[in-house]
Amino acid sequence: MKIEGRNAVLELLKTDKGVDKLLLQKGAEGSLRKIFALAREKNIRVQFVEERALAKESEGGRHQGVIAFVSEYEYADFSAVLAGERGRRFVIVCDGIEDVHNLGSILRVAECAGANGVVLPKNKSAQVTGAVIRISEGAANHLQVARVPGVNAAIDALKAEGFWVYGLEADGEDLYGCDLTGDLALVVGGEDGGLGALTRKKCDKVLSLPLAGRVNSLNASVALGIAAYEALRQRR
Amino acid sequence: MKIEGRNAVLELLKTDKGVDKLLLQKGAEGSLRKIFALAREKNIRVQFVEERALAKESEGGRHQGVIAFVSEYEYADFSAVLAGERGRRFVIVCDGIEDVHNLGSILRVAECAGANGVVLPKNKSAQVTGAVIRISEGAANHLQVARVPGVNAAIDALKAEGFWVYGLEADGEDLYGCDLTGDLALVVGGEDGGLGALTRKKCDKVLSLPLAGRVNSLNASVALGIAAYEALRQRR
Repeated sequence: MKIEGRNAVLELLKTDKGVDKLLLQKGAEGSLRKIFALAREKNIRVQFVEERALAKESEGGRHQGVIAFVSEYEYADFSAVLAGERGRRFVIVCDGIEDVHNLGSILRVAECAGANGVVLPKNKSAQVTGAVIRISEGAANHLQVARVPGVNAAIDALKAEGFWVYGLEADGEDLYGCDLTGDLALVVGGEDGGLGALTRKKCDKVLSLPLAGRVNSLNASVALGIAAYEALRQRR
Repeated sequence: MKIEGRNAVLELLKTDKGVDKLLLQKGAEGSLRKIFALAREKNIRVQFVEERALAKESEGGRHQGVIAFVSEYEYADFSAVLAGERGRRFVIVCDGIEDVHNLGSILRVAECAGANGVVLPKNKSAQVTGAVIRISEGAANHLQVARVPGVNAAIDALKAEGFWVYGLEADGEDLYGCDLTGDLALVVGGEDGGLGALTRKKCDKVLSLPLAGRVNSLNASVALGIAAYEALRQRR
């Protein structure tokens, strides 16, 4: 798998993930100095190449002078997502996020808001590809992302572990009236259908953002960002 | 200008903006019934066409069976952005947002959070095109969006009008320690450079989101969403 772009590669190099090779653009050494130094420190093989070689290898067309070749993204076990200090755990569950931009943005928001992990279903969901890692600005490399056969069984397991599981969707209770401390799982629905009917039912509560205007919805990753930061505010 | 996609056209039809013509897809009448009814009510010319005609007219490739032809987006005067109940006004200032997805997403978030208006500079900024309106899910049609020659003069004018002007950027005061009631303007910086140096200096305060993880930034529209909803929470 390839990871491209300066921030995404920089974040990758801060992790223990195995990097097979790094391509850096000739003549751009100055602006890539930090990446080069980190790669040297970790004994990663570095090749300096012309821009056209990077352009040829690039999948997203936004390599910014650097492409890393890594082994496939290593998903975590579901149990790793549940790890962490009891009473302070915070997990995001994605229910059918199919757009890679949304998934990348959700991972970025989840990491910034201090979530321990993210749960994705194996089917009908975007997966963690190189593009998703780049869009997440490398956040995927700092998060435990677990794939599960189904979201509903994962919610049951989270509830059995003592988590409060709250879905985010219209026509629920007011987000700002809800206690978001303790072991918390926020469930965010897909771009088109929102939460599945059974998934919605399994949640302890469905929470909604107030909408002050006339457009009646927010983008999934923006809505998650607002809810996750309200959780962070309450939990500090 | 063309507006495409069901939500964006539906929101457009709820406004007083002039619509020259509406193309609807033959055979999809059922799912477009609401749009058709609204268009009839407003005496807008409707043509039913084959999917390939829509595909040909589509600029974003996501017409969902409907494209509206409208006059150019009508920007508001800066004075219209300042209108509203004194002590409750809420304005978003964009300082060099160049990505159309970010601008569309910012307009959507601004409208949902109850902002009265948005200020854009005429240069070095994305403008309100059909694509931006579609990405905003039609929110652009419900907001006063004013173009100004420069952001810094607009900030001076907002301050003279009694607004508190707060920039959003790293290395500022904690967002959650700040009173966001009263006449409020939030200034959001561009994707690359953030706030201009003089702009940052002109703000009454620079506010930052806490970052609990290791990735050190959020996308501009997500960060604005979180700050604008914290303002909404405090102002309710």
